[in-house]
Amino acid sequence: MTEIVDWVAVDWGTSNLRAWGIGPGGAVVFEKSSPKGMGKLTRDEFPGALAELLEAVAPAGAGALDVLICGMAGARQGWLEAPYLEAPTDLRGLLDGAVRPAMPGGRIAPVILPGVCQKAGGDNVMRGEETQLLGLATLTPGFSGVVCMPGTHSKWAQLSGTRIERFSTAMTGEIFEVLRTHSVLRHSFNGDIDGPGRADGFAAGAAAGLAHPEQLLGTLFQVRAASLLSGRQPDWCAGYLSGLLVGTEIGSNRHLIGEQAVPLIGSPALCALYAQVLDMAGARGEPRDATEIVLAGLKAARSFAV
Amino acid sequence: MTEIVDWVAVDWGTSNLRAWGIGPGGAVVFEKSSPKGMGKLTRDEFPGALAELLEAVAPAGAGALDVLICGMAGARQGWLEAPYLEAPTDLRGLLDGAVRPAMPGGRIAPVILPGVCQKAGGDNVMRGEETQLLGLATLTPGFSGVVCMPGTHSKWAQLSGTRIERFSTAMTGEIFEVLRTHSVLRHSFNGDIDGPGRADGFAAGAAAGLAHPEQLLGTLFQVRAASLLSGRQPDWCAGYLSGLLVGTEIGSNRHLIGEQAVPLIGSPALCALYAQVLDMAGARGEPRDATEIVLAGLKAARSFAV
Repeated sequence: MTEIVDWVAVDWGTSNLRAWGIGPGGAVVFEKSSPKGMGKLTRDEFPGALAELLEAVAPAGAGALDVLICGMAGARQGWLEAPYLEAPTDLRGLLDGAVRPAMPGGRIAPVILPGVCQKAGGDNVMRGEETQLLGLATLTPGFSGVVCMPGTHSKWAQLSGTRIERFSTAMTGEIFEVLRTHSVLRHSFNGDIDGPGRADGFAAGAAAGLAHPEQLLGTLFQVRAASLLSGRQPDWCAGYLSGLLVGTEIGSNRHLIGEQAVPLIGSPALCALYAQVLDMAGARGEPRDATEIVLAGLKAARSFAV
Repeated sequence: MTEIVDWVAVDWGTSNLRAWGIGPGGAVVFEKSSPKGMGKLTRDEFPGALAELLEAVAPAGAGALDVLICGMAGARQGWLEAPYLEAPTDLRGLLDGAVRPAMPGGRIAPVILPGVCQKAGGDNVMRGEETQLLGLATLTPGFSGVVCMPGTHSKWAQLSGTRIERFSTAMTGEIFEVLRTHSVLRHSFNGDIDGPGRADGFAAGAAAGLAHPEQLLGTLFQVRAASLLSGRQPDWCAGYLSGLLVGTEIGSNRHLIGEQAVPLIGSPALCALYAQVLDMAGARGEPRDATEIVLAGLKAARSFAV
């Protein structure tokens, strides 16, 4: 079956590739996804992965199908590098920084949005999150404040309308994974790490991280000591490690958080944990629908074409 | 050639096995070492590794050769578990907590010293460092204060004479290794990480860690951003990561450090880096000879036999 669309919105991350067909009027007419994330592809394999995903799609008008892409496809190790815009910057200018990779066949016209970098105030980079932030700004007009995007590399961004003022990256999710898999702490996770003790461990770890974010290098080892000395089980230990890292991340950003709820953009499970820890810190988190947000961002980026 | 000794002092760590023959009068009459650390041995292989190392050694008197062992050989995953003494405790009691594993042949009589644990004030464990602390106390009579033992798992201990009051463990060395090898930061280390830029990177990272130990999860990612944005080379990036971790460790323990120099027990290269960062923090470090210290500790432990 051939699908007819105006254009296609694509979020091309490290692990996955997701595409939404946008019909006349802006409605989503199809959704497709593939495990062919940037991390699994060589440079030459990007055109084929996109063509394969969109083979049954035809443009509504004459000419090639517009495909607007955000995320790691634009990284140096991706399809074609889309140089960063530098913060502070107005995200309505994303499309101005886009690049257009060659695509054999002429049936598809891909456009890759840039990421955002920061040089003053600490070198930093993001790719994909800038489009989500533009989506959040579009869906929440007048929003000004800090936004938290939990994940492998959590982002904390200061937004003023569509303008990104500054941001930081916490390696929380990745540190959890490398410690769980490769460090001495792995000995504490032999067994069911998702058992009923996980919630208690998470709460204990989060409290420790919030109270003393500066002690992380030391409290991490307590995961191991707790299983050696106190007979803590793998589920409790995994929860403690996770809570300790999230608590440390939120504790170290506590000074950025005011009375207003912090928008949380990420997986629902992770956002719920961050909301729990924000609550423990006397603040509030507001999980948002990440798919709705990124779609709004891609639509907004396209609408601000100059 | 057969060597005749009173007894043998052994430091059996995770990576290596080192032995010193102690002659009449306490002099070291030989030193031997082997790469057969605890981490490379199954439980059954410990007796053979020790016998192989000491095959040419004969006791001065009649009967079996006394071998006094500290370190990971006494861990749960080692030769025979030597249960922990609990801090606060007087380290002159180490031998009271020792265990005596079976040794085929009857020619060698091994004794494994216990580690020290802490339950009140944060679960923690050490194995091997307690013997070094006893050695330091013996070589520096009247010392009272904090001692830093840099390494894979750095220890910070409060010592009052031969009494250990409390301690903590910072996973500094191991975090450096897992991030260097397994995280996204590894992309920043493709090349010569020991080049001339390493010292500058170390100083910059140490300054950042000392200033904001609570920001570690965020500053870590700046290693990656610095190579993407500022063209930082692998040597600078490796130095920055190392400095950031050491600076964070020392920054988070700064409140324990007074006017007195902090004894540093570890590899000479690592102790020099810690002394540099202590100096940046307005404190002083005093590198000590780790071999002399552990030998003094094993001799002292043996002398306090009840």
